[in-house]
Amino acid sequence: MRIALDVMGGDHAPTAIFEGVRQAAEQWPDLRLVLIGREEVLQSQTYPSNVELHPVTESIDAGEEPVKAIRRKKDSSIVVGCRMVKEGKADAFISAGNTGALMAAGLFYTGRLEGIDRPALAPVFPTMDGRGVLVLDVGANPEAKPEHLVQYARMGAIYAEKVLGFEQPRVGLLNIGTEEGKGTERTKEAYSLLSQLPIRFVGNVEARDVLYGVCDVLVCDGFSGNILLKNTEGVAKAIFERLKEEFTRTWLNKLAAAILKPGLKRFAKAMDYTEHGGAPLLGLSGAIVKAHGSSDANAIANAIRQARRFVEQAVISQISGEIGDDRRD
Amino acid sequence: MRIALDVMGGDHAPTAIFEGVRQAAEQWPDLRLVLIGREEVLQSQTYPSNVELHPVTESIDAGEEPVKAIRRKKDSSIVVGCRMVKEGKADAFISAGNTGALMAAGLFYTGRLEGIDRPALAPVFPTMDGRGVLVLDVGANPEAKPEHLVQYARMGAIYAEKVLGFEQPRVGLLNIGTEEGKGTERTKEAYSLLSQLPIRFVGNVEARDVLYGVCDVLVCDGFSGNILLKNTEGVAKAIFERLKEEFTRTWLNKLAAAILKPGLKRFAKAMDYTEHGGAPLLGLSGAIVKAHGSSDANAIANAIRQARRFVEQAVISQISGEIGDDRRD
Repeated sequence: MRIALDVMGGDHAPTAIFEGVRQAAEQWPDLRLVLIGREEVLQSQTYPSNVELHPVTESIDAGEEPVKAIRRKKDSSIVVGCRMVKEGKADAFISAGNTGALMAAGLFYTGRLEGIDRPALAPVFPTMDGRGVLVLDVGANPEAKPEHLVQYARMGAIYAEKVLGFEQPRVGLLNIGTEEGKGTERTKEAYSLLSQLPIRFVGNVEARDVLYGVCDVLVCDGFSGNILLKNTEGVAKAIFERLKEEFTRTWLNKLAAAILKPGLKRFAKAMDYTEHGGAPLLGLSGAIVKAHGSSDANAIANAIRQARRFVEQAVISQISGEIGDDRRD
Repeated sequence: MRIALDVMGGDHAPTAIFEGVRQAAEQWPDLRLVLIGREEVLQSQTYPSNVELHPVTESIDAGEEPVKAIRRKKDSSIVVGCRMVKEGKADAFISAGNTGALMAAGLFYTGRLEGIDRPALAPVFPTMDGRGVLVLDVGANPEAKPEHLVQYARMGAIYAEKVLGFEQPRVGLLNIGTEEGKGTERTKEAYSLLSQLPIRFVGNVEARDVLYGVCDVLVCDGFSGNILLKNTEGVAKAIFERLKEEFTRTWLNKLAAAILKPGLKRFAKAMDYTEHGGAPLLGLSGAIVKAHGSSDANAIANAIRQARRFVEQAVISQISGEIGDDRRD
């Protein structure tokens, strides 16, 4: 299996990517890892024998307008990575760079699966029980019709089972109340459609319960999903920052904090998004994975582990098969 | 000034309401506080001289379907309270009970202000700097058109200035990116409309920045606002619960936690919604305030303080004047 990685994107690039790739190369010697990046960046390192280099001349910055960027920069790591997947030169591509550009290039080069109107960005959110929950969509498409939510549910259920290892994953619908009649016209219609699917639909899920692991797959429009994602990150970050301040305010506090540190570190780690790997772009014909922008080496290694399972479990042909079957009915 | 209170609603009713009323009755002897509740509940207490009793025969439970409940239970505390405001027998009404029923009764009895299509539920979210941010709407109406967001912005700016004391409040639009072109068709149009208003519009605000106090008033559709509200509560609750577990896991941890406790308590208090008082239903012809369901005595006293300012500052006639002016233009 060949997994390509973008060396140019992410807050800690390229160091975190090099380091994560080294970890993965050692752990899975059967993998071939292809690093895509500017020549001068790639030349700065030595690599294990199962790592290949693919130099490019361009890179897309975090702030660039996605569609323009992928049109202009045909030799950027993101465009080249997606093209390699399309052409079968790589089985999967991982980038921690510009999310919009990755989605646009994924869509443009690998294309949508038949029967899928819109691909969805599907990260795993941490939950208090450590299982995590796959949330989709978190912003590939700000708006979603009920039938799109249905597609998200089906793709999410397959991914959660095959890649995350959840048996008969419980699928919930993000809503503003748990009762059936709650929410907008769209969520009401989605509720009714989801109830008829051959999945384990557990009904509406409120934002306050997501962290408590009440479902394994949470379906939502990209706008709400993005609000949920960024708010969870923001609240957790704000609280941990304030705790840190409190823990270092006096020497006595520092002493007390030192005692509590190991337990708190374990907890902070459990709350860390990047521990669960990257977010697949479900609904594309190729395995494209978005790693979190703040990914460290460990997060990159986790994203590689996830991409590996994504390919190994043939998730894409499974989605295509199931949704294709429906269309032939 | 007469402020009526629902003694029957909220997780800690009636005790928290009695206690909060006592605090407020002492602090503002000029206030007349009218307690609305079942006779047997009201009879259980003795009261300060500026507290009046208004017995009713019914109450609406948290789980009841709002519209049905207010139609059937004409002598419930929520219906009677809203009617008292309508008839000028009370200047404001506060309830910690069934949110939907309070909104429905407020709408049905006091009615909408001219020029306002939809009232908005507007709680104050805590921020790290302690100022707080008024968020509207958080669920009075799941869907909102751009022109509704404009009305929310104007009402919110007035309330934030008059009641919360923010000078020239900064108004933000909840969105999934900070750039102007981000989000749905609706947020794009809202952005353009908000830019033309005589308010201090600071542009799009991402969910991760809300807690950092980047604006004083945050405008959003009720669905997203509700997700934001419940997610913030859920994440904070989950983290504090886990901390508590960690702090009591061993005797040494307990000792360390005891040292850190005062600082952490201050912080938990700052993160507590109920510290900022209740959520007004902006856009109604009467001052109706929803206190948080989990309000303790202190939260009820805060809601009374807020309702007092709401009336004193003539927020409703100010909203009506400004929006009415536009309509005459």
